[in-house]
Amino acid sequence: MDFGIQGDNETMYNEINELQEGSVTSPKGYKSGVTYAGLRAYSPDKRDLGILYSEKQATVAGVFTTNLVRSHSVTLSEKHINSGYAQAIIVNSGVANACVGMQGLKDAEEMASSIASKFVIPFEDVLVCSTGMIGVELPMGLIRGGIEKLNLENNFGHEFARAILTTDKTTKEIAVSFKFEGQVVTIGGCAKGSGMIHPNMATMLAFITTDAKVSFGNLQAALKQISDSTFNMISVDGDTSTNDTVLMLSNGASLTSEILPDMLEWDVFLTALHKVCEYLAKSIARDGEGASKLIEVIVNEAATLNDARLIARSISSSLLVKTAVYGNDPNWGRIMMAVGKSGAEVNESNISLFLNEICIMEGGLPIPYYKEALIGEMRSSDVSIRVHLGLGDFRAVAWGCDMSEEYVTFNSAYTT
Amino acid sequence: MDFGIQGDNETMYNEINELQEGSVTSPKGYKSGVTYAGLRAYSPDKRDLGILYSEKQATVAGVFTTNLVRSHSVTLSEKHINSGYAQAIIVNSGVANACVGMQGLKDAEEMASSIASKFVIPFEDVLVCSTGMIGVELPMGLIRGGIEKLNLENNFGHEFARAILTTDKTTKEIAVSFKFEGQVVTIGGCAKGSGMIHPNMATMLAFITTDAKVSFGNLQAALKQISDSTFNMISVDGDTSTNDTVLMLSNGASLTSEILPDMLEWDVFLTALHKVCEYLAKSIARDGEGASKLIEVIVNEAATLNDARLIARSISSSLLVKTAVYGNDPNWGRIMMAVGKSGAEVNESNISLFLNEICIMEGGLPIPYYKEALIGEMRSSDVSIRVHLGLGDFRAVAWGCDMSEEYVTFNSAYTT
Repeated sequence: MDFGIQGDNETMYNEINELQEGSVTSPKGYKSGVTYAGLRAYSPDKRDLGILYSEKQATVAGVFTTNLVRSHSVTLSEKHINSGYAQAIIVNSGVANACVGMQGLKDAEEMASSIASKFVIPFEDVLVCSTGMIGVELPMGLIRGGIEKLNLENNFGHEFARAILTTDKTTKEIAVSFKFEGQVVTIGGCAKGSGMIHPNMATMLAFITTDAKVSFGNLQAALKQISDSTFNMISVDGDTSTNDTVLMLSNGASLTSEILPDMLEWDVFLTALHKVCEYLAKSIARDGEGASKLIEVIVNEAATLNDARLIARSISSSLLVKTAVYGNDPNWGRIMMAVGKSGAEVNESNISLFLNEICIMEGGLPIPYYKEALIGEMRSSDVSIRVHLGLGDFRAVAWGCDMSEEYVTFNSAYTT
Repeated sequence: MDFGIQGDNETMYNEINELQEGSVTSPKGYKSGVTYAGLRAYSPDKRDLGILYSEKQATVAGVFTTNLVRSHSVTLSEKHINSGYAQAIIVNSGVANACVGMQGLKDAEEMASSIASKFVIPFEDVLVCSTGMIGVELPMGLIRGGIEKLNLENNFGHEFARAILTTDKTTKEIAVSFKFEGQVVTIGGCAKGSGMIHPNMATMLAFITTDAKVSFGNLQAALKQISDSTFNMISVDGDTSTNDTVLMLSNGASLTSEILPDMLEWDVFLTALHKVCEYLAKSIARDGEGASKLIEVIVNEAATLNDARLIARSISSSLLVKTAVYGNDPNWGRIMMAVGKSGAEVNESNISLFLNEICIMEGGLPIPYYKEALIGEMRSSDVSIRVHLGLGDFRAVAWGCDMSEEYVTFNSAYTT
């Protein structure tokens, strides 16, 4: 019951609000600009070059692909975040700037220096992201022309979110806020998927902005920690891109004090950041190429956190599980197969298994269920697979999508 | 030029002949029997229970699934090969005998003891293999009836190869022979695929027979070594079954001396065994669910053998590579992505890449090629991807298949 009385502390630490139509420009002090540079096939609303800009120099954090064959845009951005500060992120879609030799580094550097000159900011404060075809050089003539056309606008976050898409069907955006020292602090984010998606960064780009004041080191620690339980727990097709990047800017424009790890507000900040990253990660999984459903896999009672994550990802990325979910087929033997092949410690006779809320296995033994009810559950757009291992206290959640014929059709004719 | 003169030594060590219509009963002293027990939907030529039998007790070797959730049939067979000897292998398709609790072990034991009684051989000399649905108990009434009907026949290897199939389109059989001490020594084999196939045993069963005389320990070492470079280098869908098993029997019926590792003939024996296993492994990959092409991936110049294998398997199991091959799409950036994500040591600027015999990348840089020629090459039923890493002396070969819409269609409606 709500008596209309609520302690200030409770408000301060618990209330994280999701904004209506939030975007990367919801936090104070951010602008963006987009244009059509001609990198992708033309359509009237097509944009393929975008900039995200902080009015003040911001602290920065980044998480990058683990693929050893990586885009030069990734190499450049990773180098530039080492200074601890950034002010602009320039993103092109259409060309990945990967596997093109040293020309790729020159081109990424030219993109950064053009933005630095145009907006009169240090070269090291510009980050570069690219997504698209591997093995094709960036058409720098088009990119130069595009950068010339770029103008910074207020409240232009939605347009930026649209400009970074490749084969995504929808934009992925969110912003949340909480109160600190009487001020509203906001975190916004947007991302793109949607193929070559697997743990440890996929062809996914995600950009997160906040007007909180957080130091470089703390921001990096927070982004890494939250990415490991969100972006790194999604899988579309098991393939890891050469270009995956998550970048976060913190510009302090909320004018509050610095948020530090030993403050209670740090947990609120982490919770809010987790909310943003989890929403974006789930949106990427749901919009995987050819996907019709989101699959959420929850692993409980694992012996270690690593085991919980191994099993959750083994299930969410199993082709046989994904095709069964697509066909509304309660073929749970495939889930057990994926549990066993993960490499994690399991004891078959301890395992219980739920599909949505229906228990289909307990203590390692199948239990009777009404098949039609289960098929009905599987028809929903969100299918949850929950495994209890009965071995320990660790838990992990992973997200994936079903696999349809459309994925194959789409990916068998990408360049030709 | 052949002058009609050939040294005995050369004949002895080099000539390995493939037999016309070879099978597991090509080596001397083997029989088999098959029947329809009613485990799978009826059709006039359907068989779902088969026995492979050696007239004399044979030495035995086995390689089993690495999945920790495993069929009780696997558990029983693994225990029984520890004695070093076996005489009969009973195989059912339709039901995997996995995820059914301790009843599964009782049923596997009953299958073994029924065969032992019927053919008057020790219980420990019977091995059991099952393939099919997970989570369903073996219908023992049907299996008892089936075992009663089983009769041993000579030259019945083809029928046995047919009885073990599930969704395979074709049988997979071969036999090769070589001469030793003036006698013909033969190795025969058959296998089934064709989904849930990934390195370290998949839903694959393979049975290899020889009339050579080889001790238990040496046979096991040979089978493990050869499996690692053949059966464990194939992938259809990245999923690893609960039931994978490769079994080999050596009954000495060729009446030659024992072949020992310090003899020159040991290399001939290994080469012949490799030929049998590689043929079966490639046949499984080629007949993967929904597959239209065999993909062979050759990795040269790796720093370690493990690196070479990691990269070869990363490429052969990448969905984006598999769909591109299906669509005759020379999207080689996906191959580079798979090289980089494998976890193995790579240096992008050392890498060269060939598709069939066409070089498409050299020293990390794309080189011009005639696209139509490449698409033409990709239309063939065998597509070869060759990577030179420029780092060391190690080499590995992996096999996979393309991925078509048919795989998804098939696997989204397996039980329903």
